[in-house]
Amino acid sequence: MNVQTKPPRPPLNGVDTQTLLNTINFVVGQPDLARFQFRAANRWIEGTHSRSAMLDFSGAGADHKHLKSYFGDSDHPTVLCGGDRAPTPVEWLLHALASCITAGIGNIAAARGVKLTRVESFVDGDIDLRGILGISDEVRNGYSNISIRFEIEGDAPPEKLQQILDQARARSAVFDVLRNGVPVSVAMNSVQ
Amino acid sequence: MNVQTKPPRPPLNGVDTQTLLNTINFVVGQPDLARFQFRAANRWIEGTHSRSAMLDFSGAGADHKHLKSYFGDSDHPTVLCGGDRAPTPVEWLLHALASCITAGIGNIAAARGVKLTRVESFVDGDIDLRGILGISDEVRNGYSNISIRFEIEGDAPPEKLQQILDQARARSAVFDVLRNGVPVSVAMNSVQ
Repeated sequence: MNVQTKPPRPPLNGVDTQTLLNTINFVVGQPDLARFQFRAANRWIEGTHSRSAMLDFSGAGADHKHLKSYFGDSDHPTVLCGGDRAPTPVEWLLHALASCITAGIGNIAAARGVKLTRVESFVDGDIDLRGILGISDEVRNGYSNISIRFEIEGDAPPEKLQQILDQARARSAVFDVLRNGVPVSVAMNSVQ
Repeated sequence: MNVQTKPPRPPLNGVDTQTLLNTINFVVGQPDLARFQFRAANRWIEGTHSRSAMLDFSGAGADHKHLKSYFGDSDHPTVLCGGDRAPTPVEWLLHALASCITAGIGNIAAARGVKLTRVESFVDGDIDLRGILGISDEVRNGYSNISIRFEIEGDAPPEKLQQILDQARARSAVFDVLRNGVPVSVAMNSVQ
């Protein structure tokens, strides 16, 4: 006799919600599985141009690899005397924010039975370069402000879509890091 | 009669140092030129997979475009029920940090007359996913710690290379944002 009261949920928005909920429930009982470490390895190319590879990570009690190595480049724009062969490092922060909250929207909408048809976001960050150019010690190096605006369409009223966005923000790893900061240690390995 | 006491510097490490110094001196006299805004536009694809485009930005009193549109994808890994079609959003934060400090190393080494032959960095971030999974309200959503280790080779002694790294960190926009946080506003546009 099947005593399960909730039938398995079919995938929605490309999210296998049942597997995701099973994963969460599994971690509840074994919190050590929740410890993850993500990594990137960067190599300078020329000038302000460099490339990172992202492949290995650990978590859920094991070492993992992505399906393949992923790469990302950064450079400074020509107006700042760079080669503009890639986005700037600070633009990657904006991509990280938008894509983190958007992933949450995908998962949370699926969990709430909302079928999404469009999620777009537009993010901008204001920065006074007198900081990084060393012109003023009273100007911070980083962004003074980041603003992101979402457009979300799906089979739910605007209030419910707003609640999904609110929850995605409330559980976003990147939003938390950007908003609240994190300890960062920088060291130089001795080289032979 | 030429009264210039310092001859122009030739490019080094792929950095046109003279133009960079001229740019900095120009901004000293017109601080409004230092106000920049960087932007990204993200579109959800499926599940936790999305793509950002980075093209327009403003600064130095004008609107600019990169030489072309740059794109970056994010996804969640399969162990977290994603499709693993791209790096995770939190890995992009690590790439942003490594590439920002590395760009600074390129510029600062050139300004100090140091020829670089290799700059590599290895960055990792620890994160307890009980936060984003909604399992514990006492665990933050984001990284608890980020650590980056550099290996730098060039025609200078280790102490001087360490000073270049120190200055690159001290003027890094991404290091500042990650270390100290920034106000982030999240809004939903009304859609017809």
